[in-house]
Amino acid sequence: MGSIESERTTVGWAATDPSGILSPYTFTLRNTGPDDVYIKVHYCGICHSDLHQIKNDLGMSNYPMVPGHEVVGEVLEVGPNVSRFKVGEIVGVGLLVGSCKNCRPCQSDIEQYCNKKIWSYNDVYIDGKPTQGGFAETMIVEQKFVVKIPEGMEPEQVAPLLCAGVTVYSPLAHFGLRGSGLRGGILGLGGVGHMGVKIAKALGHHVSVISSSDKKKQEALEHLGADQYLVSSDATAMQEAGDSLDYIIDTVPVGHPLEPYLSLLKLDGKLILMGVINTPLQFVSPMVMLGRKSITGSFIGSIKETEEMLEFWKEKGLRSMIEMVKMDYVNKALERLEKNDVRYRFVVDVKGSKLVDE
Amino acid sequence: MGSIESERTTVGWAATDPSGILSPYTFTLRNTGPDDVYIKVHYCGICHSDLHQIKNDLGMSNYPMVPGHEVVGEVLEVGPNVSRFKVGEIVGVGLLVGSCKNCRPCQSDIEQYCNKKIWSYNDVYIDGKPTQGGFAETMIVEQKFVVKIPEGMEPEQVAPLLCAGVTVYSPLAHFGLRGSGLRGGILGLGGVGHMGVKIAKALGHHVSVISSSDKKKQEALEHLGADQYLVSSDATAMQEAGDSLDYIIDTVPVGHPLEPYLSLLKLDGKLILMGVINTPLQFVSPMVMLGRKSITGSFIGSIKETEEMLEFWKEKGLRSMIEMVKMDYVNKALERLEKNDVRYRFVVDVKGSKLVDE
Repeated sequence: MGSIESERTTVGWAATDPSGILSPYTFTLRNTGPDDVYIKVHYCGICHSDLHQIKNDLGMSNYPMVPGHEVVGEVLEVGPNVSRFKVGEIVGVGLLVGSCKNCRPCQSDIEQYCNKKIWSYNDVYIDGKPTQGGFAETMIVEQKFVVKIPEGMEPEQVAPLLCAGVTVYSPLAHFGLRGSGLRGGILGLGGVGHMGVKIAKALGHHVSVISSSDKKKQEALEHLGADQYLVSSDATAMQEAGDSLDYIIDTVPVGHPLEPYLSLLKLDGKLILMGVINTPLQFVSPMVMLGRKSITGSFIGSIKETEEMLEFWKEKGLRSMIEMVKMDYVNKALERLEKNDVRYRFVVDVKGSKLVDE
Repeated sequence: MGSIESERTTVGWAATDPSGILSPYTFTLRNTGPDDVYIKVHYCGICHSDLHQIKNDLGMSNYPMVPGHEVVGEVLEVGPNVSRFKVGEIVGVGLLVGSCKNCRPCQSDIEQYCNKKIWSYNDVYIDGKPTQGGFAETMIVEQKFVVKIPEGMEPEQVAPLLCAGVTVYSPLAHFGLRGSGLRGGILGLGGVGHMGVKIAKALGHHVSVISSSDKKKQEALEHLGADQYLVSSDATAMQEAGDSLDYIIDTVPVGHPLEPYLSLLKLDGKLILMGVINTPLQFVSPMVMLGRKSITGSFIGSIKETEEMLEFWKEKGLRSMIEMVKMDYVNKALERLEKNDVRYRFVVDVKGSKLVDE
């Protein structure tokens, strides 16, 4: 637990009800504990799951809630036990700020599967206080959950990697899908999907983007460098592409049939679900049995995988496609995100925003 | 193709319509080709899928149909190219008698996933004639699809291994689940399920049998040596067993909810479907994502895996639990199988049966 004797004040933008509107909110952070890193937020990405949390779509939201879990900032202060980070360094914070450290996942450095994980916001920290996210001037995070950022990376570019990027990278690494020459499918071209295309291409894969319409065809092929574009309602094209993919990253966040996509997979192919969907998904068993296919999924990535992915990203010279906004645009950005009207990720320039009206 | 110039007559028991009744049937087999093995059938197991085929449950049955795909017999004659087998040897035949030999699965010795595989019965052979199964005096099979049986194994014991046995063994081997100390679940205790318990125990696993009622509790724990028996409707027991299994072999051949069983799996656990079920199965995506679980399945096993499994079975000194019947009891046996009234596999003593009325 550690004794936390005093607190300091900070300011962010919070949801105070499920309306979807954020507004300025002053709150307190604990003082820097022995293992803590005190961070001035520079940039914070906006993820589709922020929208779910803000609007209480999962029925688990507590208000006031300061969202934001793709945080890049500068270290202002470190506790006496902190050796990995120093003042002035640019660091990252993702979806988690705590875990039990003793369970099998924690011991295996995949703390994202710890049953006692603590979310960066809309959760309760070990001191009993609510956690608050990166749409704020400052954050305080235990060093174990702070991400090292390779030198020379542009901080605003890093923000969307801390959730969307590692969410795609982690299953490709875990399920043995890093080898070049594989054929991958990216189902849905939003924030996570665009990262999927970038990462899969950088791994040397042949990448098919699969979408419900042909609206994103040009951008998929020309801007993102996908090799093929499949419209899921085009039965002929889907049939021709049958039995051709080693994996599909399925980013669709709403209910959808699985069989058309299972059909695209080769023997031993994997359908990897990324979307938290509360309506049941369906399939018939011969569709998996007769090709030894798997329906699986994974959940963000560990701190270790995030750091590995950032090194990979830097080494390959990749770039996220982002739209930078100031905090006073955040409500409009959320509204546009809900309509998928963004190519492909909003990043809030927190450092360059006025967080309180003067 | 090979030229097949003449034929010989044999006799078996065939379904002539979907009534579920078999009766004596005289038909022809091709003469022994260069790569063929001509076999006198000694024993043949009865599998639940025979029942589906006989009754046209899958809508793909052609009559007259001689079922049977767990065949053990004696080599009567071999073609000039046959080197693996000699006259007088006891050999096996499973679910397949042909495949393309050129595709990726064929080249990888997993010919059961070849799209041009030829079933032992209710299929059309490369000569254009219907294939007929093991409820017959003799069979003729290309050597590639004949299974080597380790010396000293009792032939009637081997029969159910050729489908039920390898069906369980293959996914455990393929998905890296052979190590001792794993915790496995066997859902459903029929022909395949009982093999599952035997094989998983022989691998050194802790085995939980999961069933819809407690009717089979004593036999599971005492006769088959399972370590735990879970009744799926017992919410408390199911909750206590949550997050405890590395895999579940799901042998249930009818629609059922997947979520109670996904809950039993640990991080990275696998739900392996064995039942061909034509009604959709359902689950919600967080159930797989938050534990990186997989819903997968596999289909019988290759000739190579079958031979490997027979070696394993012999080495461990395992015994199938079978009920031997004569052919004149086969219709009664099918009736009982439909009601799951068998512990655990019927094997027809073909050699000791009169196949025609005199």
